[in-house]
Amino acid sequence: MAARFKDRLLEAMRTNRSLVCVGLDFEMELVPQRVQETEFPIFEFNRAIIEATQDLVCAYKPNAAFYERHGETGWNMLRKTIELVPQEVPVILDVKRGDVGNSAQKYAEAYFDDLGADAVTVNPYMGTDAVEPFTDYEDRGVFVLCRTTNSGAADFQELLIDQKPLYEHVAHKAVEWNAVHDNVGLVAPATQPDRLQRIRRIVGPNTPLLAPGIGAQGGQVAQAVQHGANLRGEMLILNASRSILYASQDDDFAGAARKATERMRDDANEARDVSVRP
Amino acid sequence: MAARFKDRLLEAMRTNRSLVCVGLDFEMELVPQRVQETEFPIFEFNRAIIEATQDLVCAYKPNAAFYERHGETGWNMLRKTIELVPQEVPVILDVKRGDVGNSAQKYAEAYFDDLGADAVTVNPYMGTDAVEPFTDYEDRGVFVLCRTTNSGAADFQELLIDQKPLYEHVAHKAVEWNAVHDNVGLVAPATQPDRLQRIRRIVGPNTPLLAPGIGAQGGQVAQAVQHGANLRGEMLILNASRSILYASQDDDFAGAARKATERMRDDANEARDVSVRP
Repeated sequence: MAARFKDRLLEAMRTNRSLVCVGLDFEMELVPQRVQETEFPIFEFNRAIIEATQDLVCAYKPNAAFYERHGETGWNMLRKTIELVPQEVPVILDVKRGDVGNSAQKYAEAYFDDLGADAVTVNPYMGTDAVEPFTDYEDRGVFVLCRTTNSGAADFQELLIDQKPLYEHVAHKAVEWNAVHDNVGLVAPATQPDRLQRIRRIVGPNTPLLAPGIGAQGGQVAQAVQHGANLRGEMLILNASRSILYASQDDDFAGAARKATERMRDDANEARDVSVRP
Repeated sequence: MAARFKDRLLEAMRTNRSLVCVGLDFEMELVPQRVQETEFPIFEFNRAIIEATQDLVCAYKPNAAFYERHGETGWNMLRKTIELVPQEVPVILDVKRGDVGNSAQKYAEAYFDDLGADAVTVNPYMGTDAVEPFTDYEDRGVFVLCRTTNSGAADFQELLIDQKPLYEHVAHKAVEWNAVHDNVGLVAPATQPDRLQRIRRIVGPNTPLLAPGIGAQGGQVAQAVQHGANLRGEMLILNASRSILYASQDDDFAGAARKATERMRDDANEARDVSVRP
């Protein structure tokens, strides 16, 4: 594999001409009966989804919560899911961890050395030494939570410090962190174009933004691309989970997932073509 | 078991007359050769530690990082470790999670329903709806990261908003969260008496503070008790990990752990006797 996470990400974006990331958030209640009845439903479901979408995406993003829920088996399914993804497509393991140096080091080893993830998400609240053990892996990516899209996000992320919301301070700090190995990205809100654009301006054109919270709706996708991608229409990762995984809850779920991914990719690419400036 | 986490915690504090919590942070390199060579070193080590200290503590606190590092086996060892702890002693699972509602819900199910933890630690950065799925378990405890003791803590936690550092805003928000089911505590710095006291004043006497970062040194322990416990000398959990677990790295590790715990308990109790006011 290419040396740096960003290069691998860009390569996948270009090869598959896609900004779409599929969030592999398995939920037993939402998959077809036929899959539920197999020996390893998580594996069967994820395999079908990955096979149906791997030429249409720039990354996959399993969220650890949906695997931890299933205990030891879930952890094993997470490992097998990461193995299923073709080498050319990066896996962003969505763990949102944040802990003191020694513990963060163990987390980093667990995800990078043991599970083999290409990138992780981390929480900035504990500061530099909680993030460093992850960024020390020069060939992996680290996405720092900046502005999230949930209803409680404003509780702290919007508090003003010197007239700037906390999340902008996080973005500025991430620029510092990125200066060491050029492997830091940010989690930014796809559904809030103004904030997405502000974050893009702070981090510059070469930092990947991971933007979740988007449905498969074309309008939102176009707005996110116009405000979050760089001038080349790149370095923006649009994550969708439920709208793709559960586009159909019947036996045709894989085909439906492919169609939903394709639609989102095309909507994003249309917006890229419009927004790319010389 | 008693209905509420706080009651179970208080009961353990009173029965064992102890504010000490042992952090069960297994590190292979630090345990005796004899333990490393057993089939399940984590289990053997934790069993010896728990047997040697269970009448001297108010809680145990395994940090998930040290288990995740060992993959599926580690997860299984975490489960077995929680099972090993006597019913009367609460287990605080140190996971520091924070995620959107749906994912947080899965995390809560994983730790409370599946692993059977009595309490967890959570990260406040994503706000109310990232914490609620945990606090919705009325009989469990939720410790919100407030001011941590690592070197990077000041990066964001000390930023001033309306002349008050961010961590104080988190403490005030935690008071709101606690108002619903009275099951919220805070992670506060044992080694920074001024901040510990400020947090105690914000949350009042009946909110447990989990204070890590302390060694087995008597002076630090006394200061933490005087500034962090309530007027009854209670509701402060002093966590020590390495200074107890690895007090000896030889075959006498369990006995040495007991002595270190006893010393810390006694130092804390001495300070409680002095500081308890009518």
